[in-house]
Amino acid sequence: MTRDQILSAAVEVLRRYGPAKATVVDVARALKVSHGSVYRHFPSKAALREAVMERWLRESHTLLDAVMAGDGPADVRLRDWLATLFAAKRKKALDDEELFATYMALLGDASEVIEQHIDHLLGQLREIISDGVARGEFAVQDPAATARAVFDASLRFHSPVHAADWGRAEIDEEFDALCVLILDGVRAR
Amino acid sequence: MTRDQILSAAVEVLRRYGPAKATVVDVARALKVSHGSVYRHFPSKAALREAVMERWLRESHTLLDAVMAGDGPADVRLRDWLATLFAAKRKKALDDEELFATYMALLGDASEVIEQHIDHLLGQLREIISDGVARGEFAVQDPAATARAVFDASLRFHSPVHAADWGRAEIDEEFDALCVLILDGVRAR
Repeated sequence: MTRDQILSAAVEVLRRYGPAKATVVDVARALKVSHGSVYRHFPSKAALREAVMERWLRESHTLLDAVMAGDGPADVRLRDWLATLFAAKRKKALDDEELFATYMALLGDASEVIEQHIDHLLGQLREIISDGVARGEFAVQDPAATARAVFDASLRFHSPVHAADWGRAEIDEEFDALCVLILDGVRAR
Repeated sequence: MTRDQILSAAVEVLRRYGPAKATVVDVARALKVSHGSVYRHFPSKAALREAVMERWLRESHTLLDAVMAGDGPADVRLRDWLATLFAAKRKKALDDEELFATYMALLGDASEVIEQHIDHLLGQLREIISDGVARGEFAVQDPAATARAVFDASLRFHSPVHAADWGRAEIDEEFDALCVLILDGVRAR
């Protein structure tokens, strides 16, 4: 039995029972193994939940990594990166609302995992911005501070607390207007 | 008995009993009047709550109106406006956490009042941006779309769902970096 099989079973259990009721015993039962076999991989219910959250957050990384691998103009890459992140988060929120609500309920318990996720995203933004500066396409004083500013400026389009807005009719138009503001904000004059 | 006296009593009742338990009868009792006298001004508990929320949201308007009255460079006014809004929201969140939590609980019931508040803010942003364009200081295609983009870009610094961040040590630095990004995004080249 792999770590990944346990995580998939844990997601199903969370979806079925909700985060308040789901237990490690339920996960073991779904896998038809003893709860000891689950504890061998995850020492506690908290550790299992953090691993579920981590895998969920990581799913968007693959698509972002593909954007990072590109070597076109930095402004195209920055816009792609923001659009890819928004699309990934929106897909999660709208495709499976029940599971998304479950993840939302777990957010408070997984602050370390979330911090690592945000650090990963900030690192990618810094890389695109630094590259843009090196190419003479962007002009910013401090790429790390600008990465944080771009992350903050786009919160409405990736932070799950704003998920209720993602089904609005105007949301794509508003995303486009925000991208124009951000790109004009970093572009060299 | 004025409308404003009823609203002040309602705030105290909400603070004391919480939004789930507070009733119109409690408000009348606090004012030592019959509940009929309260109903004469506010036909329902919902109407009273909306009026409380409206007054609360309006309190930040006075300070913003003072910024609007200025006639200095548009970039200074835009930055002042963002800083004034952030300071007003942060003060509300940190000065009286219990009351702030009460208002948060009421947010869902007062969507129309909140929409009016946001429209008012968007109107002020559009006015500053249009004025900047007229003076040749800003260059944007569509002031209304840019107003929305600036509002969205600064969400972390005025939306109550982000209030937990407002006590962070880095928050002022991060606000400054965001303002640089926004101002560089609208400035004429």
